[in-house]
Amino acid sequence: MLERVNVPTQQREQLLNITAIVQDFVTSSGLRDGVVTLFVPHTTAAVTINENADPDVVHDILDKLQREFPRRDQYRHAEGNSDAHIKSSLTGPSLQIIVTEGRLVLGTWQGIYFCEFDGPRTRTLFIKTMAG
Amino acid sequence: MLERVNVPTQQREQLLNITAIVQDFVTSSGLRDGVVTLFVPHTTAAVTINENADPDVVHDILDKLQREFPRRDQYRHAEGNSDAHIKSSLTGPSLQIIVTEGRLVLGTWQGIYFCEFDGPRTRTLFIKTMAG
Amino acid sequence: MLERVNVPTQQREQLLNITAIVQDFVTSSGLRDGVVTLFVPHTTAAVTINENADPDVVHDILDKLQREFPRRDQYRHAEGNSDAHIKSSLTGPSLQIIVTEGRLVLGTWQGIYFCEFDGPRTRTLFIKTMAG
Repeated sequence: MLERVNVPTQQREQLLNITAIVQDFVTSSGLRDGVVTLFVPHTTAAVTINENADPDVVHDILDKLQREFPRRDQYRHAEGNSDAHIKSSLTGPSLQIIVTEGRLVLGTWQGIYFCEFDGPRTRTLFIKTMAG
Repeated sequence: MLERVNVPTQQREQLLNITAIVQDFVTSSGLRDGVVTLFVPHTTAAVTINENADPDVVHDILDKLQREFPRRDQYRHAEGNSDAHIKSSLTGPSLQIIVTEGRLVLGTWQGIYFCEFDGPRTRTLFIKTMAG
Repeated sequence: MLERVNVPTQQREQLLNITAIVQDFVTSSGLRDGVVTLFVPHTTAAVTINENADPDVVHDILDKLQREFPRRDQYRHAEGNSDAHIKSSLTGPSLQIIVTEGRLVLGTWQGIYFCEFDGPRTRTLFIKTMAG
C-alpha cells in the first residue's frame, strides 16, 4: 500500500517528528511483517531518524548543519538555497524501517523526522508498505 | 529482476543524471507497483537524488563537498582519495524509490544522480525491482 | 526473516566490519534472491559501506568526521554527545543490499560497517530479508 501525506512546515529549517504518522499508516494498512519505505519527493528536504526525547538534539543537528553548510557561501545557484540542496543529499530522501507484528522496529530513543531545509512550505511524504 | 548497468564517468567529481536509465529498466521489467533499489558497488562513488533543472545545484553540491572534504588533508590512506571515501559514506551507496503504475514516484524537480567522487572510471550500478 | 544481533563496541568512535555477520544470516535464512535491510535502533550509531582492505580508510573517515563535527562545540544537549547524533543522521541508520543466488551483491573492496559514534556500548543491529 502507498500513502501520500501532506506535511506542513513552519520554519526555514525544522525537524518534524512524524513517527506517529508512519505508525498509524502501518497500522491502518494491516501490515504485520515487512518493511516500510519513506520517500520525500523534494530536493531541499529529507527524512532521518534521531532522538525523540531531548529537543536540544534536534536543535544541535540543525544548528551545526547551518554552521557547516551556511545559507550564504560561494554558491552559483540563484535561488539562494544551495545549502538546503546539499543537506538534502547528505541526509537522504529515502529511509527503510522494519515492521514486525504490526509495529515499527525502532529503538527507545528513536523518532522519525521529516527534515525541512528550505521552508516553510507544505511538503509531501510518501509511505509504502511491503510485506515479507 | 536485477540489472547491472555500466556507468562511464568523465571527471574526478561528477554527478550523472541516471533517472532515464532507472525508469527504462523499471519499464522493461514490467514492474507495476513496488520498490526499486539502487546499489553502487564502489567505495568512492554513491547515489543520490537532487535537482534536475538548474545545473548550478549539482555544481554547488560538488564544490561545497570539495571545500569541506578537500582532496588534500591530514589523511593516512596512501592512495590519496580519502576524501572520496568519506563523501561516499556520507552520500550513501543505496537508495530506494517507490514505483506505482510502472512509474518512479519522483518529485517534479528530482533527478537520480550517480555520484562519482574519484573518477574518471567505468563504474557499475545495480538496479533491483521488488513487487509489492 | 528478522534477526537481532548484538554488536559490542570497544571505543568511542569505531567502524566494525559486520559483512560476515550479514552474509551468515542471509545464508542461514535460505534467501536466494531479494534484498536485505540493515537497521540500527540507536541515535548515536549508524551503518555504512566502505573499503575493507586498507584500515587507514576507516581511520581517515572517523578522523575527518571528528574534525568536522568535534565532540566539543556550541551544543545545547547536556549529554555531550551531539556530535554522535549528527554523525548518525549524516551516515544513516538503514541500508539495503541486494542478494542474488544467496550472496550479498558487494563490490570487491566493499565491507559493511557498523558505525559506533558514542561507545563503547553493546549495540543492536537488525537484519531483515525480503525475497523478490
